[in-house]
Amino acid sequence: MLRRLRGIKAVLFDIDDTLFDTATLAKMSRVNAVKAMMESGLPIRNVQKGYRLLLKIVEKYGANYDQHFDRLLEALGYTRDPKIIAAGIVAYHDTKLAYLKPDPDVIPTLIALRDKDCKIGIVSNGRSVKQWEKIIRLGLQHFFHTVVISEEVGFEKPDPKIFELALKELGVKPEEAVYVGDSSEVDVLGANAARLVSVRLVKRKRKEPRFDKSMRPKVTIRKVSELLSLLKIA
Amino acid sequence: MLRRLRGIKAVLFDIDDTLFDTATLAKMSRVNAVKAMMESGLPIRNVQKGYRLLLKIVEKYGANYDQHFDRLLEALGYTRDPKIIAAGIVAYHDTKLAYLKPDPDVIPTLIALRDKDCKIGIVSNGRSVKQWEKIIRLGLQHFFHTVVISEEVGFEKPDPKIFELALKELGVKPEEAVYVGDSSEVDVLGANAARLVSVRLVKRKRKEPRFDKSMRPKVTIRKVSELLSLLKIA
Repeated sequence: MLRRLRGIKAVLFDIDDTLFDTATLAKMSRVNAVKAMMESGLPIRNVQKGYRLLLKIVEKYGANYDQHFDRLLEALGYTRDPKIIAAGIVAYHDTKLAYLKPDPDVIPTLIALRDKDCKIGIVSNGRSVKQWEKIIRLGLQHFFHTVVISEEVGFEKPDPKIFELALKELGVKPEEAVYVGDSSEVDVLGANAARLVSVRLVKRKRKEPRFDKSMRPKVTIRKVSELLSLLKIA
Repeated sequence: MLRRLRGIKAVLFDIDDTLFDTATLAKMSRVNAVKAMMESGLPIRNVQKGYRLLLKIVEKYGANYDQHFDRLLEALGYTRDPKIIAAGIVAYHDTKLAYLKPDPDVIPTLIALRDKDCKIGIVSNGRSVKQWEKIIRLGLQHFFHTVVISEEVGFEKPDPKIFELALKELGVKPEEAVYVGDSSEVDVLGANAARLVSVRLVKRKRKEPRFDKSMRPKVTIRKVSELLSLLKIA
């Protein structure tokens, strides 16, 4: 295994749940939104009840829908109240900004990789401006040699073409590149299909199905900084 | 004049450029957006040039249009670049939040009015959730006895009906109420038409046309706290 990780010239990263803790951000933003709405008069007894109802609404309408709080009031049989909705929006956004920080080992790892002449990049699915907003808020906009976002290029992970595009920009062959992401079905599957060295980041262990071989990573790490020992840098 | 201001039982306020300095917020947000876009590669030589071009775009497409920065890149003959656009958005929003603070005398004045059993309220034009977001970010959501926003009620200033609605909620007659706003054409005209005592807030003197009698305020003040001496409270 580690033999393969010699001769690596580029490390490409996923953004969400890889460079920062998206799951905690989403949870805390929603919990704080419910608390703020309660302070503004939302007639529920406890935060957890409101949070669970909000999760069902997010699941039903999708994460990018922009009227979750309107639907939450409706679900509680409450007439639309702009004060309560605005309280939710303000708390949600403030919390999001507070949690939109790179995991503590991310910036030191990126700097160490660049210091060793390793190219670094991002390959991400999503809307270009939204993903760039995250990169900028994470303070990472000047670090990467390439940033490829699906909306802009017209392919998305797990399509191998999105990885090939990033490699082309860096002038690096697939077997000389590592891709780091959290998702077996998207990140690992795509990186394997494009013949990069797939590294799966699993910050919190949880029960999972046994994945098909195409979705099994070459290496699993618990935090981004483990890349340095994998690549014999640290 | 001051005789009239005895027996006042309610003070109603405009929001923008009355409770906070909207003009400075807008200017600094746009200047900082242009600076951030330059840092991300916008090919212009100086901030003022970019700012002036942005102002023309805002004027052309309206303040609520959501793609000013896309149009700015186009106007400069530059292809759409999500990194540059995102840099502008992030800087714009961060600056907006930093400037969304009440003028320093606003909260002490509101507290003093309430202490003297004076009802206080807001009568504002705009979209309900957006205006409530401002009220909440200003930290004023728990101060007012009534908040009337045009979108919710279906009338907007200078229509006297929006003032009458607020007065009805407070149980106060027009001549017992003061309306404080910055605009002759909207705030003063509407308050006069509804027979409230119109108080115009003029923070910065500038050359203006001679307004028709219907747009002339009963009193002009330079800052919100002057209300207290007008109403014989301080």
